[in-house]
Amino acid sequence: MYKCSVERMADKINTFSKYGDAGHGGITRYALSEEDNMARAEFVKRMEAIGATIEMDDLANMYATIPGSNPDAKRIVVQSHSDSVKNGGNYDGILGVMTGMEALETVVEQNIPHEHPFTVMICTNEEGSLNPPAMMVSGIVCNDLLPKDLAKNFQYDDMMASKPMVDGFPANFGEMLKNSPYRGDKANRINADKYCAMFETHIEQGPILEANNNEVGAVQFVMGMFNYSLIFKGFAAHAGTFPMDKRHDALYAASQALIYLHDEIDKLGRPELVYTTGEIYCHPCVHTVIPDEVEFSLDVRHEDPELRAKVLDIVKSVTERKWAGCTAEIRENWKRDTVYWNEDLKGFVEEACEESGANWQKIQAGAGHDAQFFSYMIPTTMVFVRTKDGISHSEDEFATPEDCTVGATVTLNAMLKADKFYK
Amino acid sequence: MYKCSVERMADKINTFSKYGDAGHGGITRYALSEEDNMARAEFVKRMEAIGATIEMDDLANMYATIPGSNPDAKRIVVQSHSDSVKNGGNYDGILGVMTGMEALETVVEQNIPHEHPFTVMICTNEEGSLNPPAMMVSGIVCNDLLPKDLAKNFQYDDMMASKPMVDGFPANFGEMLKNSPYRGDKANRINADKYCAMFETHIEQGPILEANNNEVGAVQFVMGMFNYSLIFKGFAAHAGTFPMDKRHDALYAASQALIYLHDEIDKLGRPELVYTTGEIYCHPCVHTVIPDEVEFSLDVRHEDPELRAKVLDIVKSVTERKWAGCTAEIRENWKRDTVYWNEDLKGFVEEACEESGANWQKIQAGAGHDAQFFSYMIPTTMVFVRTKDGISHSEDEFATPEDCTVGATVTLNAMLKADKFYK
Repeated sequence: MYKCSVERMADKINTFSKYGDAGHGGITRYALSEEDNMARAEFVKRMEAIGATIEMDDLANMYATIPGSNPDAKRIVVQSHSDSVKNGGNYDGILGVMTGMEALETVVEQNIPHEHPFTVMICTNEEGSLNPPAMMVSGIVCNDLLPKDLAKNFQYDDMMASKPMVDGFPANFGEMLKNSPYRGDKANRINADKYCAMFETHIEQGPILEANNNEVGAVQFVMGMFNYSLIFKGFAAHAGTFPMDKRHDALYAASQALIYLHDEIDKLGRPELVYTTGEIYCHPCVHTVIPDEVEFSLDVRHEDPELRAKVLDIVKSVTERKWAGCTAEIRENWKRDTVYWNEDLKGFVEEACEESGANWQKIQAGAGHDAQFFSYMIPTTMVFVRTKDGISHSEDEFATPEDCTVGATVTLNAMLKADKFYK
Repeated sequence: MYKCSVERMADKINTFSKYGDAGHGGITRYALSEEDNMARAEFVKRMEAIGATIEMDDLANMYATIPGSNPDAKRIVVQSHSDSVKNGGNYDGILGVMTGMEALETVVEQNIPHEHPFTVMICTNEEGSLNPPAMMVSGIVCNDLLPKDLAKNFQYDDMMASKPMVDGFPANFGEMLKNSPYRGDKANRINADKYCAMFETHIEQGPILEANNNEVGAVQFVMGMFNYSLIFKGFAAHAGTFPMDKRHDALYAASQALIYLHDEIDKLGRPELVYTTGEIYCHPCVHTVIPDEVEFSLDVRHEDPELRAKVLDIVKSVTERKWAGCTAEIRENWKRDTVYWNEDLKGFVEEACEESGANWQKIQAGAGHDAQFFSYMIPTTMVFVRTKDGISHSEDEFATPEDCTVGATVTLNAMLKADKFYK
């Protein structure tokens, strides 16, 4: 059992946290920004220090590779991202990059024998915080392999034109990429001819490992999900002059329907199902006017397609009646199936967890990760690291250097098992 | 019984509807805009045509006056506004101005004897659509007479600095006033030494007259009201990774509390009470994030202060418990007492309604009007005209020329009764 170094991991965490320091303990580091370039320069410096070869592709994805003993073997890669959301934390994304770096540094330092080349990959613009959508670049790279429903959202030309959502960044994604010092050759893109296995190590972004007193989790799958909008239409009238019994109040309607959805979905008795209304829009949104139209989102996630179908039936049933005199319509925004990680790689992670002596568990992923798209290309799996209070996408996001190092140790040892497995 | 002219009223309605025509049957005519200036020019042209004297004050309020037989008598005024909300209708505001014009035109045409001078007044910026607040200028003119709680919201210097809320209008209210061709002398402001009675004729903006098959209403009072904000605070977490039983979802909390408010207020069994949640704000309002803070407004209106106090107790009770694990706070935005119209003037309107042969009723006002503030200065009352479907603040707003003329006939005859009453 090879062990990674807490001191070296802590030093990386401290160093990368400076690039985009947002002043409250976290960072703002948009993809391809000056701050992102600083993090990428640090990556290059440290990887060149251990003798790794640096490659870049046309989407500014970066690859640092150390050779294995077999020059013909495909690469085993640890992939993650260096960008963050606005006022994000020091772990979401960059922890996976630091994990790969730590694994390679440990291999070189301890002269660990391996046949396959080992690579750390930075995938550009996972968050899509400046130029949406999220998972943009993995969506482009894997486009031919994705289900058509998904692929259509990640067309190269559309993505190049993706406009900044944030003030003060005038350039679209294509222009930012053209100006990036880390743009390279399309021939360097990750592909199945050159790579045989992928690991992505990430903070859990949830409270489950912490609640169970586990440092790490062997991720089994990413839950399938659907996202709908529910739209309620009544009519506007003056708050002071229109009697209650003649109103068709779209906000009262929407509130009733939201409570109904909670009640009916909870009756399914499946506490591992998660569903969220994160957005609500009200028209005209004036305190003296009864709202005539209200729309809210519903995001539903679970492994089992049959259970998701049952929830969808509940969502559809909202349209079958009037709410406070208002009509209800629904609109599908998107959906995706559950993505199961590669059985062999999952097994290597579980063995490595067990051998590491850490407290660990099998766990599911609820958020989206580039690994999902890459799993259509090559065998892929994920490792989760315990997250304080389940907080992420926040400057308060935290994982201990010790837990991060356990994650790196597990990842390294799983890579070594994969190294023996793949010919 | 003197009768006003349907043809002349219809011609005024058609003519004024052109000034600010918004293309869907209604108008956008912000106070002191070019469109408002066109309506004011039409007002001057028509009033000069009957020999009225035009005066303007420092707030661009306009006064068209015909003399009475007693040169020492105080004026009797019909007051309303020429401005509209964005995409408003052809009646809210301007109907009161046209009613006064029609009354004076009838007096001149039929040579109706009267002692007091009769005045039509345009009060600037009732809607506050471009430069809030609503009822800005009556709030300035009557400031010394208003309850302190109200007066503080209408300080002259603050109002002059009031910033446009609408794109493309760079000037604040003070600058627009300075540039107005209708700005005159402060000495011309309405005051109790020069005026003895005020009428404001307005569309009902509600469905009550129509439901009761009545053309006009004798308004008894403007309902007292209060406006609160309710704020729910939980914490944000990822929609995909955070288990349901650990969530503190501020939007679910707000929905539960809104339903609770409806249930508890409805238990009071007072159908004439009106309450409205017209605004809701959600943070961060992202479909993949559980909301950490949601705020909604509650506007409550009723004549009886004891009933309003009971409703306020219900609002306060929201803060006594947690909602979906979230705290609840409330904030008072404003409140005002019920304003009762002058008993003598109300009586004159009711007599005039009865004598006119129209179907009429006593009615309450739910919306705010400049007449409220002027009632602290001089005896004041209001006349309501039937509104199609109760729709207002909309391009669909409609009242028939016949009903508008009944309103003018009632107003004129009530003025003539006041003319005999006041010495």
